[in-house]
Amino acid sequence: MNNLIIQNASQVVTCSGFTGKRGKEMSNLKVIENGTVIVTEGIISHILRNDEPIPIDTQSYNIIDATGKALLPGFVDPHTHFVFGGYREEEFSWRLRGDSYMELMRRGGGIDNTTRATRCETEKELVASGKQRLNAMLRMGITTVEGKSGYGLDKETELKQLRVMQQLNEDHPVDIIPTYMGAHAIPSDWKGSKDEFLNFQIEEMFPLVAQHKLARAVDIFCEKDVFSIEQSRRYLLAAREQGFQLKMHADEIVSLGGAELAAELGCLSADHLLQVSDKGIRVLAETGTVATLLPLTAFSLKENYARAREMIDAGCIVALATDLNPGSSFSASVPLLFALACIYMNMTSEEAVSAFTINSAAALGHADRIGSIDVGKQGDLILLQFPSYKFLPYHVGMNIVECVIKKGEKVV
Amino acid sequence: MNNLIIQNASQVVTCSGFTGKRGKEMSNLKVIENGTVIVTEGIISHILRNDEPIPIDTQSYNIIDATGKALLPGFVDPHTHFVFGGYREEEFSWRLRGDSYMELMRRGGGIDNTTRATRCETEKELVASGKQRLNAMLRMGITTVEGKSGYGLDKETELKQLRVMQQLNEDHPVDIIPTYMGAHAIPSDWKGSKDEFLNFQIEEMFPLVAQHKLARAVDIFCEKDVFSIEQSRRYLLAAREQGFQLKMHADEIVSLGGAELAAELGCLSADHLLQVSDKGIRVLAETGTVATLLPLTAFSLKENYARAREMIDAGCIVALATDLNPGSSFSASVPLLFALACIYMNMTSEEAVSAFTINSAAALGHADRIGSIDVGKQGDLILLQFPSYKFLPYHVGMNIVECVIKKGEKVV
Repeated sequence: MNNLIIQNASQVVTCSGFTGKRGKEMSNLKVIENGTVIVTEGIISHILRNDEPIPIDTQSYNIIDATGKALLPGFVDPHTHFVFGGYREEEFSWRLRGDSYMELMRRGGGIDNTTRATRCETEKELVASGKQRLNAMLRMGITTVEGKSGYGLDKETELKQLRVMQQLNEDHPVDIIPTYMGAHAIPSDWKGSKDEFLNFQIEEMFPLVAQHKLARAVDIFCEKDVFSIEQSRRYLLAAREQGFQLKMHADEIVSLGGAELAAELGCLSADHLLQVSDKGIRVLAETGTVATLLPLTAFSLKENYARAREMIDAGCIVALATDLNPGSSFSASVPLLFALACIYMNMTSEEAVSAFTINSAAALGHADRIGSIDVGKQGDLILLQFPSYKFLPYHVGMNIVECVIKKGEKVV
Repeated sequence: MNNLIIQNASQVVTCSGFTGKRGKEMSNLKVIENGTVIVTEGIISHILRNDEPIPIDTQSYNIIDATGKALLPGFVDPHTHFVFGGYREEEFSWRLRGDSYMELMRRGGGIDNTTRATRCETEKELVASGKQRLNAMLRMGITTVEGKSGYGLDKETELKQLRVMQQLNEDHPVDIIPTYMGAHAIPSDWKGSKDEFLNFQIEEMFPLVAQHKLARAVDIFCEKDVFSIEQSRRYLLAAREQGFQLKMHADEIVSLGGAELAAELGCLSADHLLQVSDKGIRVLAETGTVATLLPLTAFSLKENYARAREMIDAGCIVALATDLNPGSSFSASVPLLFALACIYMNMTSEEAVSAFTINSAAALGHADRIGSIDVGKQGDLILLQFPSYKFLPYHVGMNIVECVIKKGEKVV
């Protein structure tokens, strides 16, 4: 019976909107003090102030008393690599003592390590570890998560990763939005043949992924020594022709012009952006391609954070994501994400909440359906232990999500 | 029954020892690969390799299968202010936008805010919020926590805070070690009369606290514009004469010589130490006064971290603590503590584990009883979701504690 009344919340933090919020709009969370939200058959049907009467027969509804607690839309995590085999805890220790990524690679670490392990594991094993990670994310309030392939880098394993996500989407309360990322790295068997590898992606893989409806969007790691701007343009244009939406890993390590390309091609989002140029920020703002920032990765790698403040001030639609992956950032810590955004990226609490709800929904092309508390949207909601969203960054690094509601059903 | 066998752990990370580990010793966790630990009547009675036979009648024992999981001593948090009234989430937002601490104080923020709220709340209210915080800490593996008074700054409220901790110690599985910190700040009614305020502490409060056995140790905020080195010496010497152990907030904001004083007086620990001098490090190493570092506070305030690496290399006993408090660091995030220690303070995973187990027990004067897996110590243990302690910093910001055992009883 996914009929639910959450009544008397100290705040209903609606984040209201059906598109991403740009710049200054991110500060306006459209909060209702002392409100009630009703979900009918999994869809938000009413948003009321407490002094308004409840206009339905409540008999067929479950009721949650939210007195003293803030109600928010479920968090949307728009950039992860959460399906992978094996772990790299040894390599993390090497990195702590200062060994370079090249040195780690030489000793069998790096992405090759994860690719080997992901190729070896069965679908069942990948589903089991994926489920464990989704459980942890759900407990921190994430109700929709994007997941990328890209740890197979061969036909079989890439499809396996996408099938694992398909199955998890059926089995687990968290909604999973799969992205095909065949161009995550150049596998050793294609070394020196990048263009041929991209041909393989375009000619063999894209049609397969489209045919089996395994992903709606395609992503690429556009970076110095990985895939160039020209290669990325060719790959993404071909993806678009075959009906995919587009995403990009852009300007993470070197300022290549990734943001400019993302804006040119109308990508849903350009992600990382640690080294984005001023022009890159301007064109993202102009075109509405979402700037998706991944501070957990910068934190883990001791890099400088992306220029969130400048992007917001320039009018960009800024989203946040965890980037959960087994190498550069083995973290899906929502509390740490809020702490970093607010303390280290000079985002306000309001901007950070917008960035991880309505704007991250926009980064997935789903702002019409999730990411805010609006009538007609999916009943994905979270209740905090505290009366205000301001506790999200204030209770530093602590999970303050008390209860998670997915399509009108209490799942945590 | 409190009889328990935890069998077949992938690692028994003993942290073995009955005093704090100095310098290089911190790297040696004395790990048993594939081991079993037996707790009899709440006390650790056997530590076995899996190839050794179990030398007891197992019938009266509960059994936990720890296959694929690492077993560690319960974490010990040796510096918190976890009993307080009210919250300061608004002030946190002001701080985010760059307002100075003086400006926050002017608007009724800062420690005065918490003092007012703590004075107003009943013991019952303080017990309730304290319990909520202890629950969160326990879930992250903290089995012993130090708690300071110091948000009353008057007779009644200081005693109330200590009584609240006494009651929580009885009601809650976490062991609470209370510290009297009457000299946390100068309350407004004593402004301009610091020495008289200290006389009040020494002549009225110390005897009361001692008589009612409300604390075994005394602490002071030795800092520029708070209590000077001379004032701290007088207060701590008087406390020692009245039978208290000593602790100090030392060299946090200004390098005053707090560490030197702590070493001179034989304090259990000198805490914060962001601005400690080279000489301070040397004398802490020589005397064995524990250097207790609080990186969550530095993180929250965007300060530089304490020089953990130099302290360890100089032979100090380095401990870690959360500093949970409602102002400068509203955090008890154990996962973030490990991430900061390892990624930002250049501690190895091994050193960080030593610092939050056996060394933090030493910072409380209890290394003979808790802080390691040794026969005869209290059966306080935690089981991780993963096979190695190396996942503690690697799974950045994520709580990986699966199960917590207190005196031989599973409590999480």
